[in-house]
Amino acid sequence: MAITVVRSIADLRAASARLLADVPDRQASFGLVPTMGALHAGHAELAATSVAAETATVVSIFVNPLQFGDAKDLERYPRTLESDVELLESVGVDLVFAPSAEEMYPDGAPMVRVSAGSLGEVFEGASRPGHFDGALTVVSKLLHAAQPTVRAGYRAYFGQKDAQQLALVQRMVSDLNFPVEIVPVPTVRAADGLALSSRNRFLSAPEREASLVLSRALRELVGRAQRREPLDLESAVDLVRSVPGVDLDYFEVIDPKSFEPLAENCRDSPFQGSALAVLAAKVGAVRLIDNMPLVAG
Amino acid sequence: MAITVVRSIADLRAASARLLADVPDRQASFGLVPTMGALHAGHAELAATSVAAETATVVSIFVNPLQFGDAKDLERYPRTLESDVELLESVGVDLVFAPSAEEMYPDGAPMVRVSAGSLGEVFEGASRPGHFDGALTVVSKLLHAAQPTVRAGYRAYFGQKDAQQLALVQRMVSDLNFPVEIVPVPTVRAADGLALSSRNRFLSAPEREASLVLSRALRELVGRAQRREPLDLESAVDLVRSVPGVDLDYFEVIDPKSFEPLAENCRDSPFQGSALAVLAAKVGAVRLIDNMPLVAG
Repeated sequence: MAITVVRSIADLRAASARLLADVPDRQASFGLVPTMGALHAGHAELAATSVAAETATVVSIFVNPLQFGDAKDLERYPRTLESDVELLESVGVDLVFAPSAEEMYPDGAPMVRVSAGSLGEVFEGASRPGHFDGALTVVSKLLHAAQPTVRAGYRAYFGQKDAQQLALVQRMVSDLNFPVEIVPVPTVRAADGLALSSRNRFLSAPEREASLVLSRALRELVGRAQRREPLDLESAVDLVRSVPGVDLDYFEVIDPKSFEPLAENCRDSPFQGSALAVLAAKVGAVRLIDNMPLVAG
Repeated sequence: MAITVVRSIADLRAASARLLADVPDRQASFGLVPTMGALHAGHAELAATSVAAETATVVSIFVNPLQFGDAKDLERYPRTLESDVELLESVGVDLVFAPSAEEMYPDGAPMVRVSAGSLGEVFEGASRPGHFDGALTVVSKLLHAAQPTVRAGYRAYFGQKDAQQLALVQRMVSDLNFPVEIVPVPTVRAADGLALSSRNRFLSAPEREASLVLSRALRELVGRAQRREPLDLESAVDLVRSVPGVDLDYFEVIDPKSFEPLAENCRDSPFQGSALAVLAAKVGAVRLIDNMPLVAG
């Protein structure tokens, strides 16, 4: 079946009802994959995971002005709808929801919003004030807009690459009792190790080369955790700092749910259990984030 | 059929699915009436309106700690579950959802919340900081918890007595695209004109007598609006102020959606169109609110 592109919430609801109409209730399931477009193989992996699991899958493509603090960043965010739709059709997505800003915010900026709380103010939230409030507000709108109206399972897929966003969406769904299950999908990386991101296209060749230190430093921590050695975060930080042109913002080992940093004494003793290593750095003008789960072997 | 009382969200979802199980899809509809208990004839009217319109009706009874700034006010808020359930059974309600605070907030106060924005900071919000954020957060949870999982209409019923809460819930549903319709239900009044409220039971006989000036002043405005006269809000304010023991907080004529006060020049010229008169006053220790719609005849 050909892929359908809808622009309005009303059309989205009608199209998803049609997709699920002939499936017996209780067997039907619906998957939502929210994106901001400029799709790459990481998004394709998200969509393919949903297509494999659900009766029908909708991918939303919306560059949400609410989560950009910087108007220039919003303006320069890549928009590639035609190739996005082609990619999604090739992995078997049924429906693309690509609304305008006017469709999503008919009264201008919304008055009632979702507030991320303290977890929205650290790490990415510290350098992008209001970012997670804006992101959760639009995810809330999308979850409601795509809510199936039949007796169907409902799942939404988010990449582990945006670890803090994923944690906050999971927290929102749990704190506000959204009737949806959040499915995390592992980060997809290029052959050289760089985590896929719509922003990677802005890296020059030398910048891209420099940025490889990020995944390399994370992998060192993964290895030490796996071997139950002390993590020695400091030497991983030093490794990143040793590369010219890479301006490290943060590099921390945290609890993946609360984003609380591991206590110092846990880092100097042999690693046990599990944790998440997260980092952000500016490489040239491009801000990159990455993370890897740490698990004792 | 006897009324069913459930305590957990899981039981609520299972019970509502059972209630709608034998109704053909597309004909089923579900009504939610959120309350804080201590039910009176105003709540009965809300519930009866839903019972008359919907296949099945659930009334939630939850005194939400999140919307009380004052611990004493929370503690003294009346709790009368047994008689509440009797009243609801008598009007034909199918299901009562009466969760504990632990069921609603298993991790303590929620981190991700709904934020009411500027409309939450005026009038009732000005004297009760955080009140509407707390109210919208719990309404959001209840709307999600009671969301039917069948192809059913979904409506939630709110009293016009809490005009600002109603406006904010409508704004939340529209700003965040909740798949539910909000149905406003007119205020129910005692024979003497006092708007029914769970707090009225705290009024002494002389306080109750004094409080009647509130509905009397509102009715004067209704009459002037109906006759297309200038509203002369000042003399209505003076009327309230003339009664000893009534401490007026605000008395304003506003747009019912935005809660923006009507411009002065509109109040001195013959009334046209429609508006909402809202007031709040302390009578003894009891804070009372009331409002009436103004419509040119």
